[in-house]
Amino acid sequence: MQNVVNRRWLLTRYPEGMPAPDNWVMDTQPVPDPGPGQILVKAKWLSVDPYMRGRMSPASNYAKGVGLGEVMQGGGVGEVVASNHPAWRVGDTAESMSFGWQEWSVLVPDIPGPSGVNRIDPALAPIESSLSWLGMPGLTAYFGLLEVGRPRPGDTVVVSAASGAVGQLVGQIAKLAGSRAVAIAGSDDKLNWCREIGFEGAINYKKAVDLTAAVKEACPARVDIFFDNTAGPIHDAVMRNLNIGARVVICGRVAVADQFGKPDIGERFNGQLIVTRATMHGFLVFDWWHRRNEALQRLANWHRAGQIRFKEDVLDGIERMPEGFLRLLQGKNFGKQIIRIG
Amino acid sequence: MQNVVNRRWLLTRYPEGMPAPDNWVMDTQPVPDPGPGQILVKAKWLSVDPYMRGRMSPASNYAKGVGLGEVMQGGGVGEVVASNHPAWRVGDTAESMSFGWQEWSVLVPDIPGPSGVNRIDPALAPIESSLSWLGMPGLTAYFGLLEVGRPRPGDTVVVSAASGAVGQLVGQIAKLAGSRAVAIAGSDDKLNWCREIGFEGAINYKKAVDLTAAVKEACPARVDIFFDNTAGPIHDAVMRNLNIGARVVICGRVAVADQFGKPDIGERFNGQLIVTRATMHGFLVFDWWHRRNEALQRLANWHRAGQIRFKEDVLDGIERMPEGFLRLLQGKNFGKQIIRIG
Repeated sequence: MQNVVNRRWLLTRYPEGMPAPDNWVMDTQPVPDPGPGQILVKAKWLSVDPYMRGRMSPASNYAKGVGLGEVMQGGGVGEVVASNHPAWRVGDTAESMSFGWQEWSVLVPDIPGPSGVNRIDPALAPIESSLSWLGMPGLTAYFGLLEVGRPRPGDTVVVSAASGAVGQLVGQIAKLAGSRAVAIAGSDDKLNWCREIGFEGAINYKKAVDLTAAVKEACPARVDIFFDNTAGPIHDAVMRNLNIGARVVICGRVAVADQFGKPDIGERFNGQLIVTRATMHGFLVFDWWHRRNEALQRLANWHRAGQIRFKEDVLDGIERMPEGFLRLLQGKNFGKQIIRIG
Repeated sequence: MQNVVNRRWLLTRYPEGMPAPDNWVMDTQPVPDPGPGQILVKAKWLSVDPYMRGRMSPASNYAKGVGLGEVMQGGGVGEVVASNHPAWRVGDTAESMSFGWQEWSVLVPDIPGPSGVNRIDPALAPIESSLSWLGMPGLTAYFGLLEVGRPRPGDTVVVSAASGAVGQLVGQIAKLAGSRAVAIAGSDDKLNWCREIGFEGAINYKKAVDLTAAVKEACPARVDIFFDNTAGPIHDAVMRNLNIGARVVICGRVAVADQFGKPDIGERFNGQLIVTRATMHGFLVFDWWHRRNEALQRLANWHRAGQIRFKEDVLDGIERMPEGFLRLLQGKNFGKQIIRIG
């Protein structure tokens, strides 16, 4: 790849609270050569997702953090430009969570599980869908709602960050299951979109004077499933409105991204759990990766039938990776935040 | 019942925090006559249990509270002395959660569920066992551990209030399931008893300098099941040591009895739930009441085979009901607190 360079975002400083643009620095390297069994992929789209906050730490949680001076971790989709792997050809479309924040990536297709490489059919859907409704966020919504939340017809399903990558899908899948979905988001524009795609209730948490009362009003039969993408005050308000036998899916904590690594102090709801006999489930999509094909097939079918729709929020250029990620942590994105790479 | 009186404890004041002896007053009434379909029972043993703290409130949680001036709610076992019910005869032994804190109770055998009346076979076990290992606390341990906690051979099961009515049984049933039980209690005497009946680890939470570290040391393979009878600082220490896929059974909150009705402020563990994909289950034994016979049969079998043992803490006299209840809330009892009625 003579005369071509690879621009990469390196993590240079661990944030204390909310990350800032100076946590990363862009460097320029020669485009790497793929080794035996490897492929070289030119990124077309890169993803930013809330889980990346957890990787910006020397501590590991469920996965190892990014080391200082290393390329920031992240998923993407792009075109194979060189292959030393018999199953991959130049021109194939490859999606992986192992791209990193860079223009060119050397990937290892034979790694099993979420770090591996998936072949994308460009005829099925726009390839960037593999980063959203037809990829990891879609799987998160599918398994988190259907296998952990277990919606029943007539259930009330409350979704925080409802217009986000996962939230939009949770609401629409809940509707397919005969449940009534209630959206919580931070702007009327976001909530209008949620209503358009089938949420029957909508709460603007920034406008609510008393969020607990607002949840109560929007959920007269109380809350059977709470799909929690945010933690924080939204969590508290919904927990006070659980129905008997409620299931709380703890999926994300984007509202406390600025408190990462510190104890989350606040009201505990163990008494409510006993009174309602509710359950709280910590959820990680990677536990369901072995059933990925089942979920993608159904998501594709629903999309083709017009039963799920999806909004993306697109920024252009590798330069904007930190900006896109920070927009996400601050709730400024409207739909799944992705970055188109030139 | 001429010339015989019924001494009763009436609730006269709702406590703010920890109850005190002056929350009740004893009054004396004529012994009541049973109406049609009712039986009159002379109490032999009365029970005090942590759930009673929840009834000392005008608010209902899962059950209605005791009104001011009403007889304090509670279970007991005694002898039928008059019957207007065809299935009950004078001399039968009756157990019920509807006795109240009084010497003579009119009961309604045809009420279904936990408020009803159970016939006790005095040949099977001492009749007071129906208030402990062969009654509601036994059912709590059986269903809470086996159906909610779901122990597997090799699991580490941590039990708080481990020498209490429920805790003793959880540890012994965990052992029957091939799990390794670890006791947490507040005195070495209590922990010695726990070891004697099969707990393999023991933590004195009053002596531990760093309780989180003490749990870690006692659970080198981390905690698969946490049977939580206390809430409070013990809860926090165990939550920091959960294993992947852990189940937390939220059964009781006796350590925060003095904070009843107030928000429980402290560290929340939603991040740990995600990292460990653990679940927290609010548990109430009454949801399993339809399977009461199955559990009692097995508990009786295990007891007969010497596989479960049980310690009771006995006080004498109806006068001591408040004292017994307060001992329980303060952790001063050693074994199941019961009161023998003269």
